Amino acid sequence: MMKRRLALLTAAGAAMVAAESAHAQTASVPGRERVVVQISTPDPKMWNQALNYVENLRDLYGADKVEVELVALGHGIGVLKIESTQGPRIADALKLGGVHISACEVTMRRQKLKREDMLPNIGYVPAGLGQIIRRQREDWAYISG
Amino acid sequence: MMKRRLALLTAAGAAMVAAESAHAQTASVPGRERVVVQISTPDPKMWNQALNYVENLRDLYGADKVEVELVALGHGIGVLKIESTQGPRIADALKLGGVHISACEVTMRRQKLKREDMLPNIGYVPAGLGQIIRRQREDWAYISG
Amino acid sequence: MMKRRLALLTAAGAAMVAAESAHAQTASVPGRERVVVQISTPDPKMWNQALNYVENLRDLYGADKVEVELVALGHGIGVLKIESTQGPRIADALKLGGVHISACEVTMRRQKLKREDMLPNIGYVPAGLGQIIRRQREDWAYISG
Repeated sequence: MMKRRLALLTAAGAAMVAAESAHAQTASVPGRERVVVQISTPDPKMWNQALNYVENLRDLYGADKVEVELVALGHGIGVLKIESTQGPRIADALKLGGVHISACEVTMRRQKLKREDMLPNIGYVPAGLGQIIRRQREDWAYISG
Repeated sequence: MMKRRLALLTAAGAAMVAAESAHAQTASVPGRERVVVQISTPDPKMWNQALNYVENLRDLYGADKVEVELVALGHGIGVLKIESTQGPRIADALKLGGVHISACEVTMRRQKLKREDMLPNIGYVPAGLGQIIRRQREDWAYISG
Repeated sequence: MMKRRLALLTAAGAAMVAAESAHAQTASVPGRERVVVQISTPDPKMWNQALNYVENLRDLYGADKVEVELVALGHGIGVLKIESTQGPRIADALKLGGVHISACEVTMRRQKLKREDMLPNIGYVPAGLGQIIRRQREDWAYISG
């Protein structure tokens, strides 16, 4: 009888382990995949590619099943300047749900950029690098643009 | 009394489950290190470097102790085109165990590339970005090439 | 017999709980943020940016609240050569606590570089790629430079 209880417990334990580790595996994907993309190069080809990533991720997971944050910092800040080659694509991306576009205010100070120098409606983060690190800590996938 | 013991057991079990799934998440090096390398720039110098990474990882961990996946996407897809400067090195890498070389089919559609435009014997993934994210979720280390 | 089983289970549970909280303590943000930065491109603009990252991280978290390791490998090794444009900034960074600057010895062998070809006082790692992977496994945040 005791043995049987132990066996049941063991079985229950195993089921819990299985359930729990299934949870652990999907914990990162709580119904929504979350991805932070770093834009830090001065190359407009790479900026364009980062915007392709936004499209690709939405196609891949479904528009309401993915959250993407583009973080522009350092030499990548140009993607969010008012004269950016990517202006129209940024405007389009900003209309989508689950898309965040964040300019690094540390970079803006270094480059003496003000908000009026930047594309309309974008977001701002105090530190782009800190934002990327925070997203990694929050278990977002990380893609270097 | 028995019930209380069972309750304690259940609590201990839950703790063990938690510890176990923490272990599963960090298990990372289960005898084999696993590394996904992103190739997304148009620069053949960086393509060559990604192939050096394959060699270096095998030297470092031992040929049968590491699994590497090179994922070529966006501006990096050229590394896997039939005219790639890296053709011979890709062919050599493909002969090795534990080496996966994957072309992004989203990129191929965007660039109107067909399989006959690509190097022989490579692998294909529906979405390069999705593959890199999946590998991160499966606890592969991530290297931006 | 039952008691002994319970005791064993409890002991096992306690050990696992201890392991778990040790993990929790060394995980993510244990009072100090830890960040490994990869430098692998030949572009001195990106080298300069990686050194900005060191400054930014110290400003962001506080000088004694962050540990940063810059790992130079492949085409990025030039940042640590004696003739590097970044020589003075590297020298300054090396005076700071919590900053590690590591040259990849695999790359040095490939490029026939000796320690006398490199900036003074830097650190060396047997394999830059291995170091970055190890840091990821130790739960450092990862930034591609």
